[in-house]
Amino acid sequence: MSSTSAVPANTSDAPVFARLALVGIGLIGSSIARVARQRGLAGHIAIATRTQETLDRARELALGDSYHLSAAQACEDADAVIVSVPVGASGAVARDIAPALKPGAIVSDVGSVKASVIAAMTPELPGHVHFVPAHPVAGTEHSGPDAGFAELFDNRWCILTPPPGTDAQAVERLAAFWRGCGSNIEVMEPEHHDLVLAITSHIPHLVAYSICGTAADMETVTKSEVIKFSAGGFRDFTRLAASDPVMWRDVCLNNREAILEMLSRFAEDISAMQRMIRWNDGEALHDMFTRTRAIRRGIIQAGQETDAVDFGRPHGTAPAAPEAEEPDSVAQE
Amino acid sequence: MSSTSAVPANTSDAPVFARLALVGIGLIGSSIARVARQRGLAGHIAIATRTQETLDRARELALGDSYHLSAAQACEDADAVIVSVPVGASGAVARDIAPALKPGAIVSDVGSVKASVIAAMTPELPGHVHFVPAHPVAGTEHSGPDAGFAELFDNRWCILTPPPGTDAQAVERLAAFWRGCGSNIEVMEPEHHDLVLAITSHIPHLVAYSICGTAADMETVTKSEVIKFSAGGFRDFTRLAASDPVMWRDVCLNNREAILEMLSRFAEDISAMQRMIRWNDGEALHDMFTRTRAIRRGIIQAGQETDAVDFGRPHGTAPAAPEAEEPDSVAQE
Repeated sequence: MSSTSAVPANTSDAPVFARLALVGIGLIGSSIARVARQRGLAGHIAIATRTQETLDRARELALGDSYHLSAAQACEDADAVIVSVPVGASGAVARDIAPALKPGAIVSDVGSVKASVIAAMTPELPGHVHFVPAHPVAGTEHSGPDAGFAELFDNRWCILTPPPGTDAQAVERLAAFWRGCGSNIEVMEPEHHDLVLAITSHIPHLVAYSICGTAADMETVTKSEVIKFSAGGFRDFTRLAASDPVMWRDVCLNNREAILEMLSRFAEDISAMQRMIRWNDGEALHDMFTRTRAIRRGIIQAGQETDAVDFGRPHGTAPAAPEAEEPDSVAQE
Repeated sequence: MSSTSAVPANTSDAPVFARLALVGIGLIGSSIARVARQRGLAGHIAIATRTQETLDRARELALGDSYHLSAAQACEDADAVIVSVPVGASGAVARDIAPALKPGAIVSDVGSVKASVIAAMTPELPGHVHFVPAHPVAGTEHSGPDAGFAELFDNRWCILTPPPGTDAQAVERLAAFWRGCGSNIEVMEPEHHDLVLAITSHIPHLVAYSICGTAADMETVTKSEVIKFSAGGFRDFTRLAASDPVMWRDVCLNNREAILEMLSRFAEDISAMQRMIRWNDGEALHDMFTRTRAIRRGIIQAGQETDAVDFGRPHGTAPAAPEAEEPDSVAQE
């Protein structure tokens, strides 16, 4: 999915926001900075991050127009503020920036959990700003200002979860910004968002972390064997399991109920599978292994994944293969 | 990893095998056919598969020199036979081809499970052939003769599990063939192979299938939501879960003990994680999420994975990002 094909250009000549403040300049924050600059979505981009080292790096990368160790300072006179920090820190950030926010400013975030972020930030923010929580569903396993890139949001969904009564124009303005970043917009209840993301993002990450731990703990199989033979499938899990530990710790602690519920369902399904294997129920196994293909096809058709053969090689060394044949015509049989 | 850089050319002018018979022409069989032809590893390539449709397709793709519905016929006068069928079918194939095998012929397979395949094939094969079981640890989620490609085995490991007393020259000759295909060679006990592959390949596939099922069964989240927001991580599991159901059914039924043992360990680790979340043990979660990065780094350093940002985009739209920073310096904080 190339950026140009996916992105409606910012039609008006004026940027969506005259002054945009980015609090946190990691993978997401630095990707926003890059795309906003590249596509003219913001006039002045003010960048704030806690550590001098990261701020210096952001300056070296020329990610913004002004650089601040004080989040409040970066937010002064900002038309929009996007907070991109681990969700556990969002309440404290809201408290820090509150005094600096000008009336009518839009305050948003990019947290992977919404209900708890809304609960943490809302009471800290002044009544004269528009709080429009958001979650761009996009990412990689890399962290930090170097990891971002302008195409990260192309054809990915950005979920907005505005509280009841939020100013409609403010919501539309933030939506316009994210559309400019290449995203498709969806509006959801925060609680539903947290449920959907638990199964589409949180559980997959937790399962990936867990299976990597299981492998690392084997007494009978060495780490070097796990690494050498990871092309058999294990490798694909390690990508997710290399994601930012702080971010995922906070996700777990802030979407606790939904995650525990889904982990229980998943554990039940694993038990059912164990039983099929123990009792040699080949038919049930075959059925289970067949029904999942439809989901895969849907994801590819929705442009959320390429069908190119990858498996640890740069795409293009092998042609995109056709959808797998139905089992009864599989040539290997 | 480009094919040319990884592959020691077949130094001698003569092919490794004057006549190579491939029984089964799916993803693996057709990849062997392509690389053997491209790199001059075999003289005559005889192809056998059960269904007329698949045989016709193999002929259209010009994968071999002769095409047979009878595996025995394809194996006549073959110097080497490589059986590439679901492991549950390997015993029957051995019975079929046994009468046609010439003295001194090398018989091998590509099964993901070794102990049960050896138990099924050995009694069927005549004493005058050399049985050298093999497992190239490489694959994609696609099936059938169209899915194969010559680079599939480049810099991937091929595990040989010759029974005690196997002719050393026969083992070396098969190893030379696989090295010509681009593989690195490892020799292992069949039982150890089955244990290693259970954790590096079988469990990851089963977990991927299982989590896709869990998602599909949600009443509160629609399938279209799962698909739309799969970029949050779920998508990565669907690739494994799109693999050939027949192959995986057979793997489960033929590596039962090792898989059940690993699934139990995994289930215990999931329970431990549930407990950390239920009791808000952020420190334990952070530790768990941190230790897995070393494995990821090792896999990338071992050339078993590229570090390019992918996540559903063709590689190259984004630069390879640096290894993620340590959490305490993560810019988002």
